[in-house]
Amino acid sequence: MQLIPVQLFDAESSTFTYILFVPGAREAVIIDPVDHHLERDLAHLRRLDLELAYVLETHAHADHVTSAGRLREATGARAAVPSGCGIPPAELQLNDGDVIRFGRGEEIRVLHTPGHTAGSMSYLWRGNVFTGDALLIDGCGRTDFQSGSAAALYDSIHQRLFTLPDATRVWPAHDYRGQQVSTIGWEKAHNARLAHRTRADFIELMANLNLPRPKLIDVAVPANRNLGLPHGG
Amino acid sequence: MQLIPVQLFDAESSTFTYILFVPGAREAVIIDPVDHHLERDLAHLRRLDLELAYVLETHAHADHVTSAGRLREATGARAAVPSGCGIPPAELQLNDGDVIRFGRGEEIRVLHTPGHTAGSMSYLWRGNVFTGDALLIDGCGRTDFQSGSAAALYDSIHQRLFTLPDATRVWPAHDYRGQQVSTIGWEKAHNARLAHRTRADFIELMANLNLPRPKLIDVAVPANRNLGLPHGG
Repeated sequence: MQLIPVQLFDAESSTFTYILFVPGAREAVIIDPVDHHLERDLAHLRRLDLELAYVLETHAHADHVTSAGRLREATGARAAVPSGCGIPPAELQLNDGDVIRFGRGEEIRVLHTPGHTAGSMSYLWRGNVFTGDALLIDGCGRTDFQSGSAAALYDSIHQRLFTLPDATRVWPAHDYRGQQVSTIGWEKAHNARLAHRTRADFIELMANLNLPRPKLIDVAVPANRNLGLPHGG
Repeated sequence: MQLIPVQLFDAESSTFTYILFVPGAREAVIIDPVDHHLERDLAHLRRLDLELAYVLETHAHADHVTSAGRLREATGARAAVPSGCGIPPAELQLNDGDVIRFGRGEEIRVLHTPGHTAGSMSYLWRGNVFTGDALLIDGCGRTDFQSGSAAALYDSIHQRLFTLPDATRVWPAHDYRGQQVSTIGWEKAHNARLAHRTRADFIELMANLNLPRPKLIDVAVPANRNLGLPHGG
């Protein structure tokens, strides 16, 4: 049976956080929680009567700080992060093909989708793919800092994500235009950056975006590599 | 099997709109859509490859204008509204106990929950209750205009909503504090206005809120009684 996650939003960084659970069972997983929403997210868990099994990160974010470390302390959840993102304090270092298990037989499949960063992962659960900053709705993540690579992102999206069933729901880590959810089928046919565009054209497009440097990158990346906890703390 | 709806938000009026669908099936229902999000909502339906069967209203809103009429025109959906809300152009005039059917055997049960307005309905679907402005998260709708009644609201919440299973997810029509979803169990135990409060105390509390008159009421209510379409148009 396919399900839908609960989708939460941070208006400051336009970041989506997701709570995955099966109604009727208690164990839950949260993906990409944001530091200043710790209390909001704990309240969601309380109200829904959920126990947090895992905090998942799609990558080491440059635009906001995770609450993974503090959520872990508050709930006893384990942190699960991409092995290639340099986040040593996490219990689970995830590799492509890994399966995260929670609740009554729930499985989250780990897909390595590098390009926004070299370590970036997407997560597949019950017909939903959580694409981090790889595939966005009618867009994609930038590839011009950290270990980004437009070529790698093109291959991740075309070879790993666009080969999922068309009806797979796409839940990105960000949206800046009021969009919330899409499908693989829609993105394959309509994504303005990726549909009907060659690899070479995509690489050229991404090389010429001239985006400003993320304001928080020098604070956020080191913090996120420590799950948002103070260093040495 | 229990499911979760897609939850959309209007930041201007803090209104939630919901899309109900079963992944893998095409027919969907939307609850309480907001006029200036018509294009956003149509885009959601397109991206998710959904056909809209019904537009549901929980009541005749005083703080925003519905897009029900225009959504109906754009999609061929039917409008379904509480019979006691004075919305004559809707195809379905709902009464307590009615069942709305869509998709492959989906059923939405209609619960009359008067108090915010005399006609207000809540809708129950697969372990989720859409409570409109009756029960809010850690709060409730106001009862001081239109056909509001604190006594009726107390009875609706205690006798109709709080008698649902504790795990039932509560999806309100509004939230003003970053909350999104709760459960009947949590609200019964913790709702600041309703848990552990007598009917008489609740009526006194609601009589002394001294809330400002909704800015849009004189525009919104007549518009919503025509499904948001221009009168005589």
